[in-house]
Amino acid sequence: MQKKREAASDFLQRLGQFGKTGDTGVTRPVYTDAWIAAVSWLQKEAQAKRMAVSVDTNGSTFMTYPGSESTEIIAAGSHIDSVVNGGRYDGAYGVAAAYLAMTDLYAEYGQPKKTMTAVAISEEDAARFPTTFSGSKHYAQVDETDPNLKDSDGITFEEARSHAVSALPSFVTRQDQPLPSEWFELHIEQGPVLDTTGTQLGVVSSICELKRFNVTLTGQANHAGTTPQHLRKDPMKAAARMITALDNYAQAVGEPLVFTVGNLTVEPGASNAIPSRVTFSIDVRHPKKAAVDAFETKLNEEIASLNKVDGHIDSLMEPYPEVVMDKRLQDQFSEICEKKGYSYQVMPSGAGHDTQIMNRQVKTAMLFVPSRDGISHSPSEYTAPADLERGIEVLKAQLYLECY
Amino acid sequence: MQKKREAASDFLQRLGQFGKTGDTGVTRPVYTDAWIAAVSWLQKEAQAKRMAVSVDTNGSTFMTYPGSESTEIIAAGSHIDSVVNGGRYDGAYGVAAAYLAMTDLYAEYGQPKKTMTAVAISEEDAARFPTTFSGSKHYAQVDETDPNLKDSDGITFEEARSHAVSALPSFVTRQDQPLPSEWFELHIEQGPVLDTTGTQLGVVSSICELKRFNVTLTGQANHAGTTPQHLRKDPMKAAARMITALDNYAQAVGEPLVFTVGNLTVEPGASNAIPSRVTFSIDVRHPKKAAVDAFETKLNEEIASLNKVDGHIDSLMEPYPEVVMDKRLQDQFSEICEKKGYSYQVMPSGAGHDTQIMNRQVKTAMLFVPSRDGISHSPSEYTAPADLERGIEVLKAQLYLECY
Repeated sequence: MQKKREAASDFLQRLGQFGKTGDTGVTRPVYTDAWIAAVSWLQKEAQAKRMAVSVDTNGSTFMTYPGSESTEIIAAGSHIDSVVNGGRYDGAYGVAAAYLAMTDLYAEYGQPKKTMTAVAISEEDAARFPTTFSGSKHYAQVDETDPNLKDSDGITFEEARSHAVSALPSFVTRQDQPLPSEWFELHIEQGPVLDTTGTQLGVVSSICELKRFNVTLTGQANHAGTTPQHLRKDPMKAAARMITALDNYAQAVGEPLVFTVGNLTVEPGASNAIPSRVTFSIDVRHPKKAAVDAFETKLNEEIASLNKVDGHIDSLMEPYPEVVMDKRLQDQFSEICEKKGYSYQVMPSGAGHDTQIMNRQVKTAMLFVPSRDGISHSPSEYTAPADLERGIEVLKAQLYLECY
Repeated sequence: MQKKREAASDFLQRLGQFGKTGDTGVTRPVYTDAWIAAVSWLQKEAQAKRMAVSVDTNGSTFMTYPGSESTEIIAAGSHIDSVVNGGRYDGAYGVAAAYLAMTDLYAEYGQPKKTMTAVAISEEDAARFPTTFSGSKHYAQVDETDPNLKDSDGITFEEARSHAVSALPSFVTRQDQPLPSEWFELHIEQGPVLDTTGTQLGVVSSICELKRFNVTLTGQANHAGTTPQHLRKDPMKAAARMITALDNYAQAVGEPLVFTVGNLTVEPGASNAIPSRVTFSIDVRHPKKAAVDAFETKLNEEIASLNKVDGHIDSLMEPYPEVVMDKRLQDQFSEICEKKGYSYQVMPSGAGHDTQIMNRQVKTAMLFVPSRDGISHSPSEYTAPADLERGIEVLKAQLYLECY
């Protein structure tokens, strides 16, 4: 039992050697030498477990046990890239979970009826090129990444991609992988909910609708001492009032709505001058698109009600469509937790995941394990070995129900 | 009449050649070559008008008509240095006004009964060394500047001072000038009140008490999507609420209280991260020290009432004592305006001036002329020639009453 319980932790420890940064950090942006080494290692491990290994043109790796009765594919996985100075768990855990659940099932029950594929998606973390989800977008046949995007060294996405993919041991590259009928992703929560409440697992109901805005308020710079209150056009105080009004609104709506002002800059930025301009970011998320749209309406009302300063809103990203998990697969995750006596919480995901891309084409379900202190994208990322195993045990039960 | 009306404008045009920057800008930090040239020119002009010229060790220039009946000194002036890329009017106008009023009086009425001195104070604008009011502090025998202060090139205050003072034509340097019994300063308003209301002159009642603070709010950085509202420790929203509460307080107190948040920084400053720390400046001013102290009390209450984030206040400067103009001299300015049919407003000065240092030792009064659009410390500084003359005419009447 002891050996078993540490399998995922051992796997992540070994995978974390590729791009190791400091004692516990990982730096493994897509198509770097560390990434090539990690994927190469994984492919050899999978071949040793008698999985059929193939690679798509983006470098996503597919480790497959073909079905005995059906060509229908049940896939699970996550991304194998990491941010700069990230941790061992983000993405990697979803790859490890899919690999370990499937190799365990194969060892115990032999060939599945349906085809079972563990997937290591090439990129999700946007750490190298100004793009995100390039791996899942290609796999899900949703979108192709601009080959001319450049990294900070001027290397194009296409140059990096072709170099990396040709360096992998599995050169049996297919242009496109067939779409699965179902997609499962395990992930660390990247938030404090499970850790704070001592809950063992999170069954994801949806991935939050996300919108980002940049708000610019323009007033008039003036002397801080000689300009009376009534003659001021002060964008800093207007920004403070707007953020407060939006926070009051968010509190009235209540959870799970979250909005964040993560950055704010003041020009000219002198203690003795009324600012001329204040710019701040807004990140707003809610499982329901309607709730995010309502927040945007409130933001527009705030801008329209400004009187002494001018306001302007830029949308920073195309909003993604509403991402709701497949009800049957989600409920099956919950039932497995109940049957096994594991505490779980049905919850939306505030962070984005490959699953939101896969969700546009196939049935999806996601499971979270606790993140200590809610930390992610940091060498301090940590999930206890037993928590890692518990998630895999539930995934294994789900895959058994779907594939055997 | 035409010739007369342009005298101040001409004087400032000529003085503005020393350190000229672009078409209308002036860059004349203390003890620079431009400063030496300006002071040298002024001293020669004064000598040509039969004034006795002397210099103190800080390089302030004293241009004197000795009294026939008394050694009591009535002084007027301002500072001759400027900020980098400042305008022609700040400081320079007060020097021009004192010089032109006294030379006019002498030309019309001959020797005064009391000694009459026009003063060009060496430094007020803190453009070169990390100090301010070094000239008036020395003249008023209030404080001496640290000789080891360095400018951005590593030159010490002492090196610069001794080089500059020894380069001046009036080498009859006295260690200390005798204190005057009265001090008058004319200055551009540096604010929009007179310009906005179309008022010709401002009779200054006091110089605002000023306090500056740096407020640091520390929370906890976290993922913008995965951290629920109730688990956030968000210093940005706390800062917005605090600034809004202080603005509500300031509006309730009403004018002439002013407070300004001129700078605010957010760490780490990513749109998808709840900030860990927000730091912002507060500049608060009111003619009454008690009102500024009450604002500080309110600020402390706001800090004490924080619950999810920690707050810390640093005082950025020693507050100056309350600076109230001499009632008789102030009223005499008003009476002169009334007699001459000039519109005027009794008003506090929101900006600091040499007068606040002189005020610790002698009776003081100040007069403002309009600043177009309230602009100062900029090449766009502008006061119409007629407005400049009007101020000098009122100063001349004041000096006549006090000295003849």
